[in-house]
Amino acid sequence: MFAKEIYMQRREALVKKMQEMGQGGIAIFLGNNDAPMNYRDNCFRFRQDSSFSYFWGIDEPGFAASLNLENGKACIYADDIDIDDIIWTGPQPSVADKAELVGVARCASQKDFETAVQFALQNDVPVHFLPQARYWNRLRMAELTGTAAAEVFNAAPYEDGDYVHASQELVKAVVELRLIKDAVEIAEIDKACDMGVIMHSIGRKACKLGALERDIAGAMDAYANCKGWGVSFPTILSQNGQTLHGHDHSQIITDGRLLLVDAGLTMDNYYCSDFTRTYPSSGRFTQQQREIYDIVEGANETAFKLAKPGTTYRSVHIDSCKYILGGLKELGILNGDVDEMSAEGIAGMFMPHGLGHNMGLDVHDMEDLGENLVGYDPDQQRAQQLGLGSLRMARKLVPGHVITDEPGIYFIPALWEYFRKNKMDKGFVNFQKLQAYENFGGIRLEDDLLITENGVRHLGTTRLPIKAADVEETMAKE
Amino acid sequence: MFAKEIYMQRREALVKKMQEMGQGGIAIFLGNNDAPMNYRDNCFRFRQDSSFSYFWGIDEPGFAASLNLENGKACIYADDIDIDDIIWTGPQPSVADKAELVGVARCASQKDFETAVQFALQNDVPVHFLPQARYWNRLRMAELTGTAAAEVFNAAPYEDGDYVHASQELVKAVVELRLIKDAVEIAEIDKACDMGVIMHSIGRKACKLGALERDIAGAMDAYANCKGWGVSFPTILSQNGQTLHGHDHSQIITDGRLLLVDAGLTMDNYYCSDFTRTYPSSGRFTQQQREIYDIVEGANETAFKLAKPGTTYRSVHIDSCKYILGGLKELGILNGDVDEMSAEGIAGMFMPHGLGHNMGLDVHDMEDLGENLVGYDPDQQRAQQLGLGSLRMARKLVPGHVITDEPGIYFIPALWEYFRKNKMDKGFVNFQKLQAYENFGGIRLEDDLLITENGVRHLGTTRLPIKAADVEETMAKE
Repeated sequence: MFAKEIYMQRREALVKKMQEMGQGGIAIFLGNNDAPMNYRDNCFRFRQDSSFSYFWGIDEPGFAASLNLENGKACIYADDIDIDDIIWTGPQPSVADKAELVGVARCASQKDFETAVQFALQNDVPVHFLPQARYWNRLRMAELTGTAAAEVFNAAPYEDGDYVHASQELVKAVVELRLIKDAVEIAEIDKACDMGVIMHSIGRKACKLGALERDIAGAMDAYANCKGWGVSFPTILSQNGQTLHGHDHSQIITDGRLLLVDAGLTMDNYYCSDFTRTYPSSGRFTQQQREIYDIVEGANETAFKLAKPGTTYRSVHIDSCKYILGGLKELGILNGDVDEMSAEGIAGMFMPHGLGHNMGLDVHDMEDLGENLVGYDPDQQRAQQLGLGSLRMARKLVPGHVITDEPGIYFIPALWEYFRKNKMDKGFVNFQKLQAYENFGGIRLEDDLLITENGVRHLGTTRLPIKAADVEETMAKE
Repeated sequence: MFAKEIYMQRREALVKKMQEMGQGGIAIFLGNNDAPMNYRDNCFRFRQDSSFSYFWGIDEPGFAASLNLENGKACIYADDIDIDDIIWTGPQPSVADKAELVGVARCASQKDFETAVQFALQNDVPVHFLPQARYWNRLRMAELTGTAAAEVFNAAPYEDGDYVHASQELVKAVVELRLIKDAVEIAEIDKACDMGVIMHSIGRKACKLGALERDIAGAMDAYANCKGWGVSFPTILSQNGQTLHGHDHSQIITDGRLLLVDAGLTMDNYYCSDFTRTYPSSGRFTQQQREIYDIVEGANETAFKLAKPGTTYRSVHIDSCKYILGGLKELGILNGDVDEMSAEGIAGMFMPHGLGHNMGLDVHDMEDLGENLVGYDPDQQRAQQLGLGSLRMARKLVPGHVITDEPGIYFIPALWEYFRKNKMDKGFVNFQKLQAYENFGGIRLEDDLLITENGVRHLGTTRLPIKAADVEETMAKE
């Protein structure tokens, strides 16, 4: 938890933004509840809602809050504990004491929260709230606002403005605030990256022929669980790197393969990191692996060099992909003009995902507030093309943006077939040549970047080895 | 996953039980969905619903199933994957192939599932389903059956029969089946206990003055995550053992304290273990600690000796508590007749929880199907007393029951005050003497037991050290 002034400033900034947009009434925030694993009293590790954490700081279940957008008055709602709670969970500070720590002078019960929301609705006071990621929250919000649950259940927060009754203005104001990281936040993300480097180093050291993927992933997760809140997303660790979200860790590390490791951790305060490296299973790349690796590494470096204030990340994505197209052309896998191939979306056959995403309290920051509202400027349209269409962050870069730089090349036979069948290869692809890559797997290399006043820097104090020679040298010593 | 015959036998037994109860129509089962951590595409490790796993075996999100209670015909519902899924999660066997592995010949889409349920409801065919633990499942069930979501949201599966529209008959049939573990299940639980012993040994070895609680808990969790599905419940590891569910691990191990460790793991197939040990932080008990420890250890042994077919676990709880009352009387903390103190519920002031619970696919087995339906025979009433009233397993024991034996003594000043204020101590308690225990903490000692044809045995091939001398000797060597 930060000093109370941080939260007070954040709420003040939110009220100001909402007023600038001509919005009044109240904004209400639901904290998360515990999420059941297999029955209601047996839950996953508690994870607070990110926006609740951002504005209200309190890190436990059972809280809600309201912010008066006319006068800035804040109130926190939760129920004080009784003797049963003391037996099971120990003595606790009062709700008032907890509210005081985040600069809120007024507090009331959950029942009062219901009453306040219903009073506002009955008196036509605008009630703003954010789309809710979790089902408990969605049910609770439906109950509070009198929305039919089926509507809430099937509402898709991914599609901007499509979420039932959520306030697009509040989403916009929150996105504007959370998207630009201030010095306090950058310091936390730097720490998360330093810890992420340690987490990845544990994995790299454990990558030995004969080791079990699940033991390597487990050792990395253990570090995240001991030193932080836990993983920022389920660790992707697989010799089938061509499967983008490969959460299966059932294989033994085998000679001649590539081990793709995409992992990060969330600190106790939820700021997080997210890196990807791809290792030769034996410690040394084959020539074929090295050729592809160097292209991906060059694409990563290209993005790093181009990312700076004033440039759109959409154009950085395109240029990074052109680097990949050029590299694959040199290898004879593609034939033709790189710009033409780029325009025809050929890159998507090898990199069917975006170059990167915003990162902060969420690893895909604010994803459920609406991908387009978060990652696209008002004058930008999302593309339909495979790859570019998956780009989560396209905006014109400004200082304070925290983004990932994660190009990749994957050899996915089912996708070749899809391109061929739908005539999407446009004659640029040498399918004959591609056969040699059928069992190659995939390579992705990901860093976390901060856009600064003058350019860009890698987050964290040290960078994981990335040049092929450095990786081999490091692995040889471990 | 077991051989298909296991699942076929379980479904056959369920149909038979339902028919014996005069029930027809269909039983429908919802598998779990992924549970979001902070946004919908960033989820906790997938955990299948236990009853779905028991009858249908398939261990991934997006599945549902129906069982015709007239003719035993089974159908599995899920959607086959498309090119997008292949890119993100890799090629997959078809739904039909997965169904075949668990002995189901028919499969259809999720849309067909909705159609089938609605057809049944429109034609007055009884539709049986279980209470749903997770909110996604509850919303989906509301959608399928046309129940108002607010009803579903606030329904309490804890109270028997109170869950909106869930089938009490189906609950009873499932409870009868899952409560008695067969040889296949016992073998799995024995394995889970062997792994649980290793997990606890890692923790015990790491218990050294100056160590951080969170590092010890993290090392234990790491083993559970690497070797199994993960922890069977959030690890309780605390020098404040008097807090029954103390998930705070923020303290440094300090001389003269007691470290209570209550932890277990869930294997890949979800069968689990659950042990508690309490360690002297320095490796040696103080005299005061040793006196209380020996009482708890004696209470654990008392329960083990009494548990056998034909005895109710309710009576075992009461006798184990009497052992504790007798011990505290010897120390001068209590005065009076043990039977009288037992009748007046004095034990609840020191052990405000039950002696144990059923264990299987859930660590509190089937808790959300209704605690009373699971843990109480039809002729048993749940007590109101603190302690005995929390007993989750009271039934007459029969071979195949898997239960925990976990007495404890806790010194909770807030609870003393509560007893005194409400005149619940009835003059039996020497509050003067109690002052010396204000900062003592708590001790709990827990084993997992199997009721056999002739008596009882500890589950797992080796038992964690439990006698005070053995604990000290083991810690001295580590």
